[in-house]
Amino acid sequence: MNNIANEMYSLMERLFPICRSITGDGVRETLNILKEYIPIDIKEVPSGAKVFDWEIPDEWNIKDAYVKDKDGNRVIDFKCSNLHVVNYSIPYDGELTLSELKKHLYTLPNQPDLIPYVTSYYEKRWGFCLSHKEYESLKDMTYEVKVDSTLEAGSLTYADLVIPGESEKEILLSTYICHPSMANNELSGPVVATYLAKYFLEKGDNYYTYRFVFAPETIGVITYLSNHLDDLKKHVIAGYVITCIGDNGPFSYLKSRQGGTLVDRATMHVLKNSEKEFKLYNYLSRGSDERQYCAPGVDLPVGSLMRTKYYEYPEYHTSGDNLDIIEPNELLRSFEMYKKCVNAIEMNRIYKTIVKGEPQLGKRGLYPTIGTKTANLNVNSMMNLLAYCDGQNDLLWIAEKINEPVSILMPIIKVLIEEGLLKEVEQ
Amino acid sequence: MNNIANEMYSLMERLFPICRSITGDGVRETLNILKEYIPIDIKEVPSGAKVFDWEIPDEWNIKDAYVKDKDGNRVIDFKCSNLHVVNYSIPYDGELTLSELKKHLYTLPNQPDLIPYVTSYYEKRWGFCLSHKEYESLKDMTYEVKVDSTLEAGSLTYADLVIPGESEKEILLSTYICHPSMANNELSGPVVATYLAKYFLEKGDNYYTYRFVFAPETIGVITYLSNHLDDLKKHVIAGYVITCIGDNGPFSYLKSRQGGTLVDRATMHVLKNSEKEFKLYNYLSRGSDERQYCAPGVDLPVGSLMRTKYYEYPEYHTSGDNLDIIEPNELLRSFEMYKKCVNAIEMNRIYKTIVKGEPQLGKRGLYPTIGTKTANLNVNSMMNLLAYCDGQNDLLWIAEKINEPVSILMPIIKVLIEEGLLKEVEQ
Amino acid sequence: MNNIANEMYSLMERLFPICRSITGDGVRETLNILKEYIPIDIKEVPSGAKVFDWEIPDEWNIKDAYVKDKDGNRVIDFKCSNLHVVNYSIPYDGELTLSELKKHLYTLPNQPDLIPYVTSYYEKRWGFCLSHKEYESLKDMTYEVKVDSTLEAGSLTYADLVIPGESEKEILLSTYICHPSMANNELSGPVVATYLAKYFLEKGDNYYTYRFVFAPETIGVITYLSNHLDDLKKHVIAGYVITCIGDNGPFSYLKSRQGGTLVDRATMHVLKNSEKEFKLYNYLSRGSDERQYCAPGVDLPVGSLMRTKYYEYPEYHTSGDNLDIIEPNELLRSFEMYKKCVNAIEMNRIYKTIVKGEPQLGKRGLYPTIGTKTANLNVNSMMNLLAYCDGQNDLLWIAEKINEPVSILMPIIKVLIEEGLLKEVEQ
Repeated sequence: MNNIANEMYSLMERLFPICRSITGDGVRETLNILKEYIPIDIKEVPSGAKVFDWEIPDEWNIKDAYVKDKDGNRVIDFKCSNLHVVNYSIPYDGELTLSELKKHLYTLPNQPDLIPYVTSYYEKRWGFCLSHKEYESLKDMTYEVKVDSTLEAGSLTYADLVIPGESEKEILLSTYICHPSMANNELSGPVVATYLAKYFLEKGDNYYTYRFVFAPETIGVITYLSNHLDDLKKHVIAGYVITCIGDNGPFSYLKSRQGGTLVDRATMHVLKNSEKEFKLYNYLSRGSDERQYCAPGVDLPVGSLMRTKYYEYPEYHTSGDNLDIIEPNELLRSFEMYKKCVNAIEMNRIYKTIVKGEPQLGKRGLYPTIGTKTANLNVNSMMNLLAYCDGQNDLLWIAEKINEPVSILMPIIKVLIEEGLLKEVEQ
Repeated sequence: MNNIANEMYSLMERLFPICRSITGDGVRETLNILKEYIPIDIKEVPSGAKVFDWEIPDEWNIKDAYVKDKDGNRVIDFKCSNLHVVNYSIPYDGELTLSELKKHLYTLPNQPDLIPYVTSYYEKRWGFCLSHKEYESLKDMTYEVKVDSTLEAGSLTYADLVIPGESEKEILLSTYICHPSMANNELSGPVVATYLAKYFLEKGDNYYTYRFVFAPETIGVITYLSNHLDDLKKHVIAGYVITCIGDNGPFSYLKSRQGGTLVDRATMHVLKNSEKEFKLYNYLSRGSDERQYCAPGVDLPVGSLMRTKYYEYPEYHTSGDNLDIIEPNELLRSFEMYKKCVNAIEMNRIYKTIVKGEPQLGKRGLYPTIGTKTANLNVNSMMNLLAYCDGQNDLLWIAEKINEPVSILMPIIKVLIEEGLLKEVEQ
Repeated sequence: MNNIANEMYSLMERLFPICRSITGDGVRETLNILKEYIPIDIKEVPSGAKVFDWEIPDEWNIKDAYVKDKDGNRVIDFKCSNLHVVNYSIPYDGELTLSELKKHLYTLPNQPDLIPYVTSYYEKRWGFCLSHKEYESLKDMTYEVKVDSTLEAGSLTYADLVIPGESEKEILLSTYICHPSMANNELSGPVVATYLAKYFLEKGDNYYTYRFVFAPETIGVITYLSNHLDDLKKHVIAGYVITCIGDNGPFSYLKSRQGGTLVDRATMHVLKNSEKEFKLYNYLSRGSDERQYCAPGVDLPVGSLMRTKYYEYPEYHTSGDNLDIIEPNELLRSFEMYKKCVNAIEMNRIYKTIVKGEPQLGKRGLYPTIGTKTANLNVNSMMNLLAYCDGQNDLLWIAEKINEPVSILMPIIKVLIEEGLLKEVEQ
C-alpha cells in the first residue's frame, strides 16, 4: 500500500512546476499527464461561450516575465517561480521608476519570506508578486519590466471520467486544476482524485456510478454544470470537492448547504468512528467549488473533506505551499479516508428482515446454544442490527442508532443476507 | 423624532384622567380623542347581545362616589382618584358603621401607600379602594356612603382602523381602552398603537394590510372577534397585543400559543439582534387579549411585545401606575421597536436567485476585482444571502441561518433585485 | 387495599415451587392456577408446528434428578431446588468420575452461595447447576447420575384473556410463565398481570379493550404472534411486557423500539410526575418479549415497566431470586403504578373546546367573581387546559405542555364536558 503513497507523491512532483491558470496550456498539460493514469475525457469550451451568468474569458498563456535592474539582473523572475507573476497578467514591456513599479507589486508584509499568490482574471492588469524582504531591498532606479504573456481568444479546458456502476445514481468527486506551483492547495486534490478513480476503476463491481470532474475552480465548474446540469441533478446523490488534502493536519469536513444529506451523514459517521480529532465547518465557511454545486438552482448535495482547510494554514496561497509540507503517508491517509467515506455511501442501503419476530439464530449456528447470564453479549451487534432493519431506515441511520461503525455492520449484513434473514429494499 | 416622544406623552396626559371601564362614556371619550389623531371607526354593540360564550353587560357610568365621616369630610373620594371606586360598582346610598363599611373596602397591606385597582364586572357589588394607611386611620363611627353610578342597558364601544396594503394579508395590532387612571397598563398601549397607525398611514406603500383594534380587554376583544372572525381567520398572518409598553424596563415578549409563528420568529430575531437584555415568556404566562386571539377555535398567531410585563412591576394595577413611571423617550424606544418588528414581518418574503451557480458579481461592480487572501470578506453578507435564496426559505429563516440581522439584509436584497439577480417568489 | 398486596404475595407462594419451562406440565399447572383467578383461555400448540422462523420443540417434563455419592447421598438433588437441573436436560442414567461429571456442572464462582439458572432448549444436553461452594466440596469419586426427564412430542401451552372495551383498540399486557422457582423474574410478572386483569374485569367500563397474554418467553410469544398477528397489528395501540416488578428498587422503563409512542409517552409522563427517582432504558437494552413485539414485521408499540431490570440485580437468574426479595407492599406499589400508566393511556383522548375564545367561567361558578391581582391563580390549570384543547393535540401532549400531571387534569376535563365547554374529538 505504501506504493500508492509514493506514487501519489511522484505524480505531485511531476505536476508541481507547471504554470496553471483557469485557461491555457498549463491546464492542458496537467490533464494530459493525468490521462496517463486514468482515461479522462478532455473537453475545450471556446472563449466567449456563455455559461450560466458567466462568459468563458480569453485564454491566457505566458512564456516569461521579469523585472531587470539597470545592470540587467532579473530581480524578479518568473523562471524562478511562476507565483512571481500576477496570474492572468496582460502583456507589458516598458521601463519604470521604482515608485511606478511599486503600484504593480504585491507582497505579504506579515509573512516577509513568502511570495503571495495573486490573480486578476476579470480585470485587465499586470503585476508581480514577491517576498516582502525582496521588495524592501529594491533600490530606487529605473527598471526594465517585461510580461511576455498572451490573452487571446482560445478555450477553457476541463475533463471528466464516468465509471458506470450497477445503479445510474452517481457519487461525484470534483477537484480543480487551475493553480500554479502550489502543493496542498491544489495539487493534493487532483492527485488523490486520480488515485481514487484508479481504485474504483480497478475494483470494478461498484454499486453506484462514479463521476470524477477535473476543472478550473469556479469558472470551470460553472462551465461543467452549465453543460451537464440536467444529468447531474438527475443522478448525483452525494458529492465531494477534494482539496487541501495533503498536509498532516487533522481531517476537516465542510458540510453541504442543506446539511444532513447523505454525504454529510456518511462523512461525519466515518470521522466520528475513526478519528480522535476532526473539525466540522458549516456551509457559511465554504470557499471552493461547493459554492457552485450547492448554489440555488443547482442544489447538489456536495460537501468537502479536507485536512487543514484553505485559509487555515499559514502557507495557503503562498510560495510556502510547496512539496515540503506534503508527506506521502499523509496523502495515503487522506486517500484511505476518502475511500472509507465513499464506501459508507456505497454500502448505505435500506435492509429489511425477512422473518417476523426474532430469527432463530441458533439453528443457523449464529448463536451460542447454552443460555447463561453473559453468553449473548458477543452477538449484540447482529441482534441490534436485525432489530432495526425494518425497511424504513438506511444503514447509516441504524449504525448511529445502535452505536456501531458501518464498517463493522457490513460483514454482518453479508452473512445475514446469505442466511436468508435480510434483504435489500428497493428505494 | 423626539417630537413623537413628546406627542405620545402629551396624548397620554390627555387620556389619563378619564374613568374608563369595559363600557360607558369613559371608553367613548377616549376613542373620540384618538379619532382626532387617526381615522378610527367607532362601533356600539347593545347590552344583552350574545358574543361567543358571553353577553354584553349593562353599561356602567359614574358621576361621583364618596365616604363621608360624621363631620362631612370625604375620607374616600372618587373625585381624587377614580381608582377609589370598585370598577362597575352598583349605585348605593346609605349610612354604615365602620365594621359594616369595611366589608366593602379593598387595600394592599403590602403596599400600604397605594390604592388598588379592583373590578367587579360580573357580580353586582359596590366597594371602595384605598391605601392601607388611610384604611388604618379610619375611626370607629358611622359613615355616609354614596355611589352615584348607573348600571343600565346601553352598549359596549370599540373601534378599529384598517389600512389597506398591497396584499390582503393582515398584520393585527390590538390594544385595550378599559382601565381608569393608570399609565403603563394601559395607556401606553393605545398611545403607541395610535402613533404606529399614524406611521403606517403616512408611510403609505405598505405591503401588508394593517388592522388596528382598540377594544375593552377580554369582553371587547371577544365582541370584536365575534363580529369579525371569518375575516380575521382569512387574513391575519401575525399580530400583537400592545400593552405595558411605557416603562423603562427591558423588552419582553410573550409568545403566541402555537409558538414559532411568524410574529414569534420576527420578534425574537429583532430582539436578539438589537437588545443586550430581553425576556421571553411562553404562552403559559399569558394574561391579556392574546387569550382570546390565540384561543382554540380562533387560533390567530398573536404575541405580545411589552416592556415590563403586567404582574411583574410593583405598581401594576395600583395608583402607583401613573405618569411618573413613564418617560417620553421610553415610549419612543417602544414605538421604534414595534416598527422594527413589524417591518421584519413586512419584509419577510421568499426570494430566489435567478441565475444558476454563483452570479458573477465582478461584472456588476459588486465584487473586488483583485483576488487576494482577504479581499472578499466585505461581500460575505451578500454572498451568504445569495447562497440561501433558493425559493424555499423565507428571509427570517435565512437571516437566522447566516447570522445577519434582517435589517442589514434588506438593502442588499434591493440591490440584488435591481441587478436582476434575485426575484420574489409568489407564496 | 393491603388485601391485594397480600393476595398477590400468596399467589406467588403457590406458584413458586412449580418447575416451569418453555413447555410441559409446569406451564399447564401454572396457567390452571391463574384460571382460578381470571377467566383465561388456555391453548396448546403441538410440537413441530412452524411459528415464524421457529418450530415448537418437543415437550419437556421431569420427575426427578440427582447426583449420588458412593454412599448413596444425594449431593445434588432436584427435589431440593428445581434450579439444580439444567432446564430442558435430556434423560441420563449412568456412573461418572468427578472429572467426567464436572463437564456437566454449572456454577457461579463470583456468587459462590447461589445456584445458577441455566437452560439448553435448542441443543440436546444434560447438566446440573449448584453453588460454587458445593462444587468445590465434591470429592474425587465415582458418582451415580440420574436425570429422570422426558423430551417427546407434545405441545407448548399459552393463555390469553381479552376484556372488551368501548373501543376495539387494544392495550396489550404480556407476561411470561416459563421460569422455574424464581420470584422477581419471573413470578412478579404473572402475579401483577393477574391482578391487573382482575381490576379491569371488575372496573367494567373500560374505553379500550384489554388483552392479557401469558406465554413462555420468546418461543411462546413468537407462537402467540404467529397465531394472532393480524389482529394485534390492527388493534394494539400500546403494550407492556410485565417482568421484574416485585423487588423494592426504583421503577425503570424500557422504551419501545420506535420510542415516543403512546406507551412511552404515558409511562414517562407518569413516572416523571410521581417518582423522585426512576430509570429509563432505550431499546438497545431490551431483553424480554419486547424483542418479539417490536421486531421488524411485527412493529407493535410495546415497552416494559419494571422495578430493577433483569441483569441489574445480583440475584437475577439464580437461586437468590426467591420470595425473600419480594415484599407484598412493593408488589402493590408496582400494581398501582401499572394502573396509573395504563389509565394515562386510557384517558388520553383529543379534546376540543366548544366555545370560541375563552369561555365565561364566572357564570358557571368556575371562576372567582372579584378580579384582583392574585385571585385567578387557583383556576390556572383549568384555563391552561382549555387554552390548549384545540382538537389537535392529545391529553398527554397538553399535560406536558402545561406541566400538569394527567391525573390532575382528568377530573377537570369531566367538569368541563359536563358544563358543555369541551368535547372529545373522534380520532
